[in-house]
Amino acid sequence: MALLILFRHLKPDRYKRELAALEGGLDIRVWPDCGDLEDIRHALVWKPEPGVLASLPNLQVIFSIGAGVDNVLSDTRLPDLPLVRFVDPNLTMRMSEYVCLQVLTHQRRMLDYRELQQERQWKELWPQPGANEVRVGVLGLGVLGRDACEKLAALGFQVAGWSRSQKDIPGIECFSGNDGLDRFLARTDILVSLLPHTPETEGMLNAGLFARLAQDGPLPGPVLVNAGRGRLQVEADIVSALGNGDLWAASLDVFEEEPLPSSSPLWTHPRVIVTPHNASISDIRAVCTYVLEQIAAHDRGEPLQNVVDLGRGY
Amino acid sequence: MALLILFRHLKPDRYKRELAALEGGLDIRVWPDCGDLEDIRHALVWKPEPGVLASLPNLQVIFSIGAGVDNVLSDTRLPDLPLVRFVDPNLTMRMSEYVCLQVLTHQRRMLDYRELQQERQWKELWPQPGANEVRVGVLGLGVLGRDACEKLAALGFQVAGWSRSQKDIPGIECFSGNDGLDRFLARTDILVSLLPHTPETEGMLNAGLFARLAQDGPLPGPVLVNAGRGRLQVEADIVSALGNGDLWAASLDVFEEEPLPSSSPLWTHPRVIVTPHNASISDIRAVCTYVLEQIAAHDRGEPLQNVVDLGRGY
Repeated sequence: MALLILFRHLKPDRYKRELAALEGGLDIRVWPDCGDLEDIRHALVWKPEPGVLASLPNLQVIFSIGAGVDNVLSDTRLPDLPLVRFVDPNLTMRMSEYVCLQVLTHQRRMLDYRELQQERQWKELWPQPGANEVRVGVLGLGVLGRDACEKLAALGFQVAGWSRSQKDIPGIECFSGNDGLDRFLARTDILVSLLPHTPETEGMLNAGLFARLAQDGPLPGPVLVNAGRGRLQVEADIVSALGNGDLWAASLDVFEEEPLPSSSPLWTHPRVIVTPHNASISDIRAVCTYVLEQIAAHDRGEPLQNVVDLGRGY
Repeated sequence: MALLILFRHLKPDRYKRELAALEGGLDIRVWPDCGDLEDIRHALVWKPEPGVLASLPNLQVIFSIGAGVDNVLSDTRLPDLPLVRFVDPNLTMRMSEYVCLQVLTHQRRMLDYRELQQERQWKELWPQPGANEVRVGVLGLGVLGRDACEKLAALGFQVAGWSRSQKDIPGIECFSGNDGLDRFLARTDILVSLLPHTPETEGMLNAGLFARLAQDGPLPGPVLVNAGRGRLQVEADIVSALGNGDLWAASLDVFEEEPLPSSSPLWTHPRVIVTPHNASISDIRAVCTYVLEQIAAHDRGEPLQNVVDLGRGY
């Protein structure tokens, strides 16, 4: 009985070390050195090579190291087995760190102040609205979106959220559905996307949506923060919107293609902050502990936690 | 009966307009065009020219436009009159915005990621500790310090505070006095100073203090955030400490001399963020409303609020 680490574009070493430290006797295989495929009962995956999971005859459970599982669902030969995503409070805290940091960075105009610093210029910029004058809108009100909303509200921002189905969060104005989206965008100065990647959300962060953001806000223009999934955004539209004023600035942690190709104009755009999909980094020890605990519980006949609904895609 | 606006190094125009808009009949004078000095009952000041306040025979109350009043107390001929400082929730919110932004910026290593972005490098840096692994220490537990502590704790940081006399804030470890300072510094990865400028605090942010910060923290080294008063810091020591590793990075909003001279090495140091004393910007309308309300209450015989204790200096 073995566990297979099946990663592409990510080094498996630290995961292997951590799993071995937590459970000495565990038979750990690292793709592509899988050994006897019949031994493998569990797989820990990130962007798995398509078809590999289907080649494992005794596989029982697939574990994603992240909260998002589009990286797994893109395997067209994915076997019909439970797919467990990683959910823990640490991941939520990390995402809210990133969201609050990026929202504050733009609200406080730190890109502008950074330029002034480089020119040794001591100067205050106007407007410099307080958090209570800035309307943040969070797309996606799952565990991550809800926590981000609450922390942004604690900092003083005017926060609203949007989700496909209506949610209720004390102190947060909640919008839903297509009708709600228009009203939500029209009152939003800084848009934060934490939506999962599904056929419905793909490409929705596009020119048409940017044009519907608030045009009368206290900042020089609307801001986009995408810390969810890159396939939601149309990068050519982001660049155009930054040019025509539909967007003033953007913080992007995710991209249509990752790693972001070095030819992308986003890298050097003066009003764009690029980070390497590290907004919410899974703590490796936490992921490994979580996976081993779920395997042990499953072996005892207990139900798995956070199994993905393959119909919804998250 | 007139109000005198007495500013140096700050334009009075927006204040004059706002006061006039709020109270049409008000006789507003702007230094140095004071008119008949006997008319002046109230002064609204920022770094007042020494001796001017003493030359006003009928002055009753001095209003500082900021929370700090060292800019006023440095007038050695300051008359013995009530000095009122500006305290409002907006100012507190603004300061906590700045503190949370700077702490998150360093915890999330945004200066490093910014460099990587400029080089079009897609790379994760290690370590990148979560907020729950980073110990923030706030010097000063007045209204501003307390709010900053609570917001940092809500973001997940391990927060402690230090003040001259012992304070008690739920959920925050509070240190006090000289003995407490040693223990406070030894457990601090990111030090935030919000202390007032007094003879006791002048120059305390120096090489000796930096060397007492935690040397075993989760970041590459200790970080200084000074959003309080510039006269607390020894800038030559900050530059040395950044060189010898006693400090890893700094965010400075205040300086020994303001505006920061263009010859200062802080402007271009790659691990220093310089902002132009705008961490907590007084909202001009809020300041003016506050002053007019206090004048009206005082005229009705009610006590003034937030009068400075000249013995303590704040």
